[in-house]
Amino acid sequence: MNLPFDEFAVRDWQTTDDPGTVRVAMIGVGWWTREQAIPAVQEAAFVDTTVLVSGSKRKAQEAAALAPTIERGITYDEFHDGDATGAYDAVYVCTPNGLHLPFVETAARLGKDVLCEKPMEATVERAREIVDLAADGDVNVMIAYRMQTEPAVRRAKEVVAEGVIGDPVQVHGNMSQRLLELIPDPDQWRLDPDLSGGATVMDLGLYPINTARFVLDADPVAVQARTTHSRGAFEDVGDEHAAFTLVFPEGIYAACTASQGAYRSSHLRVTGTDGEVAIDPAFFNPQDRAFRISTGGERYDVDFPQVNQMTEEFDYFAHCLLTETDPHPDADHGFVDMLTMDAVYHADRLDETVRLQVR
Amino acid sequence: MNLPFDEFAVRDWQTTDDPGTVRVAMIGVGWWTREQAIPAVQEAAFVDTTVLVSGSKRKAQEAAALAPTIERGITYDEFHDGDATGAYDAVYVCTPNGLHLPFVETAARLGKDVLCEKPMEATVERAREIVDLAADGDVNVMIAYRMQTEPAVRRAKEVVAEGVIGDPVQVHGNMSQRLLELIPDPDQWRLDPDLSGGATVMDLGLYPINTARFVLDADPVAVQARTTHSRGAFEDVGDEHAAFTLVFPEGIYAACTASQGAYRSSHLRVTGTDGEVAIDPAFFNPQDRAFRISTGGERYDVDFPQVNQMTEEFDYFAHCLLTETDPHPDADHGFVDMLTMDAVYHADRLDETVRLQVR
Repeated sequence: MNLPFDEFAVRDWQTTDDPGTVRVAMIGVGWWTREQAIPAVQEAAFVDTTVLVSGSKRKAQEAAALAPTIERGITYDEFHDGDATGAYDAVYVCTPNGLHLPFVETAARLGKDVLCEKPMEATVERAREIVDLAADGDVNVMIAYRMQTEPAVRRAKEVVAEGVIGDPVQVHGNMSQRLLELIPDPDQWRLDPDLSGGATVMDLGLYPINTARFVLDADPVAVQARTTHSRGAFEDVGDEHAAFTLVFPEGIYAACTASQGAYRSSHLRVTGTDGEVAIDPAFFNPQDRAFRISTGGERYDVDFPQVNQMTEEFDYFAHCLLTETDPHPDADHGFVDMLTMDAVYHADRLDETVRLQVR
Repeated sequence: MNLPFDEFAVRDWQTTDDPGTVRVAMIGVGWWTREQAIPAVQEAAFVDTTVLVSGSKRKAQEAAALAPTIERGITYDEFHDGDATGAYDAVYVCTPNGLHLPFVETAARLGKDVLCEKPMEATVERAREIVDLAADGDVNVMIAYRMQTEPAVRRAKEVVAEGVIGDPVQVHGNMSQRLLELIPDPDQWRLDPDLSGGATVMDLGLYPINTARFVLDADPVAVQARTTHSRGAFEDVGDEHAAFTLVFPEGIYAACTASQGAYRSSHLRVTGTDGEVAIDPAFFNPQDRAFRISTGGERYDVDFPQVNQMTEEFDYFAHCLLTETDPHPDADHGFVDMLTMDAVYHADRLDETVRLQVR
C-alpha cells in the first residue's frame, strides 16, 4: 500500500523555521492552563507565556512561577482595564465556557488575537457574538481544537481525501473519562449548566463531532441523540452520558458516545467502501495515539512520533500570526459545533431527529 | 490483573465427551450451507450432516457430494411430505429469512428439533408463529446466533458479569461488508424485502444487537435509527447503510452501525465505569477475532485459539439435544431481536425514538 504520507508527524503547515515569537496572555489559571497549556508552551518554538490572568490576583501571581517567561500576573478586571497590554501580543482564553465572550470582546477591543478554548461559549447566542466579533476582522479568533493539529488526525483526513478507504460510509467515535475522579469537586463549573452549557456533550462529545467534521471535511445535516446521568452531581447539567448519531451529507453516519462517568477511552474510526482508518486511542493529549489503516484485507499499524498536542496547537497559532496567515479552525467553524451540540440537546429533549442547516 | 478465565476457548457448556451424534438435515443449500455449514459440521464432534433439502432436486443431490455422511438429497416438497425422516434427527433451517416458518412448522409436526438461522423470519408476525410453535414444547427451537458460542464473546460476557470493567456505560458495535461484491447478483433474496425483511439491519445489524444483549445480559427499551442506500440494487429493500442507538435499562447506550456497502469490518466494544472490553474483529467467522481488556490504565491483548464458530454452534446444539438440555438462544430470545429490528425500521421511518416493551 502506498500511504499518502512520507513524514507522519511533520508540521505540514509550517513554512518558515524562524518566524519569531508571539507573547501570550493566558486567561484562566485552572488545572488545564497550569498542567497542560503552560508546560506545552514552554516546549513550543514560536510562543512564550508572558502574562497570566485570573479572578484572583494571588492565584495569577503564584502561577507566574510556573514558567520563567511569565512577567505579570493580573486580575480579570485589570485585563479588561487594559493593564499589561505591552507585555503580550495575543490571548489564550481558558476560562469556563460561559465566560469566554467578555474576554474575547476585550481582546478584540485591545487589538489582541485570540486562541479561544472549545466549546466557544456556553450557548449558541453567546457564541454568535464571538462569530460577529471575529467577522469585524480586527483580530484573529482561532478555536482551540487541538485534534486539528494532531498528526494522526491530519493523516486520517489525508487518507480520506486521497480515497485510500474509498467513499466514507460510517464513523464511530467516543470520548469518556471519570470527571469526578479527575476533579473531585461536585461544585466544579463543568457541572454548572450556566457556566458549561452541558457537561458531557460540550466537553467530550465535541471531540468526535469536530474531529469527524474535520476528517470528513463535511458538516452534519441532522442529529439523533440521547443523554442521561447516573450520579447526583450531574443532576443540574443532565448529561453525564450521551449517545448521538450525526447524519452527514450523502448518508454518512457518525455513531458517537461520550461520558464523564466511564473509563478513560477514546477512539475515532472511519469505515469507507474500500477500507478503514482508525485512531485508537485518539483524543487524550497525555495518552499516546495509535493509527491503523485497513484495506485490501490487510491491517497496517503505523508507528509515529507522538507530539504534545498543545505545543503543536500553540506553535501553529503563533506561526499563523507571525506569517499573517488566517488561523483555522476559525469562529465560523467552531460555531457549527455549537449548533450541532445544541441540536444534540434538542434531539434528546424532543425524542426526535433534529435537522441542521449550518451553512 | 486476575482475568476471570483460565482456558479461553474451553467449551464451558460441555459436560460429557461422548454424548453421541445428532444427524442433521440442512434445509436450503445456498453458499452459506455449502461453504460454511457443511464443512463446519465435518469438523464437529457430535453432528453429522445426513440429508440436504433444496428447492431443486438436482441441487440437493449434487451438494450431497460435499460430505461423505450425506445420504439423501430431497426437495422442499419431499421434506414437507415427510420423506427421509428416518435419516435425520434434527433440521438446520438456512433458507431465505421469509421462508423459515413453513420448515419450522413441518419439523415440529415431524418431531424434529430445529436450529433456525437468524433472523428468525422476515416479519415480527411470522416470527411470533415460530415462538408459538416452540412454546408447544414438542421440539426444541434454537436460533443460530453463532456469536453466543464464540469464546471471545463468552469471555466478554464473563468480564462484564464479573465486574472487571465496573458497571457498563456504553457499547459500540459495527458489522459491514460489500454484499454485491460477495454475491454479485442484484436479484439475490437479501435485496427482496418480502424474503429478507430488510438487507442490512436484518442481516448485519443483528450482530451488534444480539451480541450486545448477550454480553450485557439485558434487552433494549428504546431505539433511535437511521437507514439509507446509495446503490440502486438496494432501492426495494431500502437499508444499505444503517446507524442506530439502542437504549438499555439503566441508561446504557449502544451506538451501532451496519452496512452492506462498506469495507468488511466488525467490532464490539463495551466501556464501563472501570474498564473496557473490545472484540475487534468480532463477527466474521473466517476472520480471526481479537480480544482486548483495558483497566487500571493498562491494555491487555489476550491471545487465544480461534475456533470455527459454526462448528462450535452445531456441537453445542447437538450436545444439548443429546444431554436433554434446553438449547439457548431459544425462540423467545430471538423474538426480542425481531421486535428490536422492527423498532429500528419504525424509528427510521418516524424520525422518532421508539420505545420497546419486549418482556
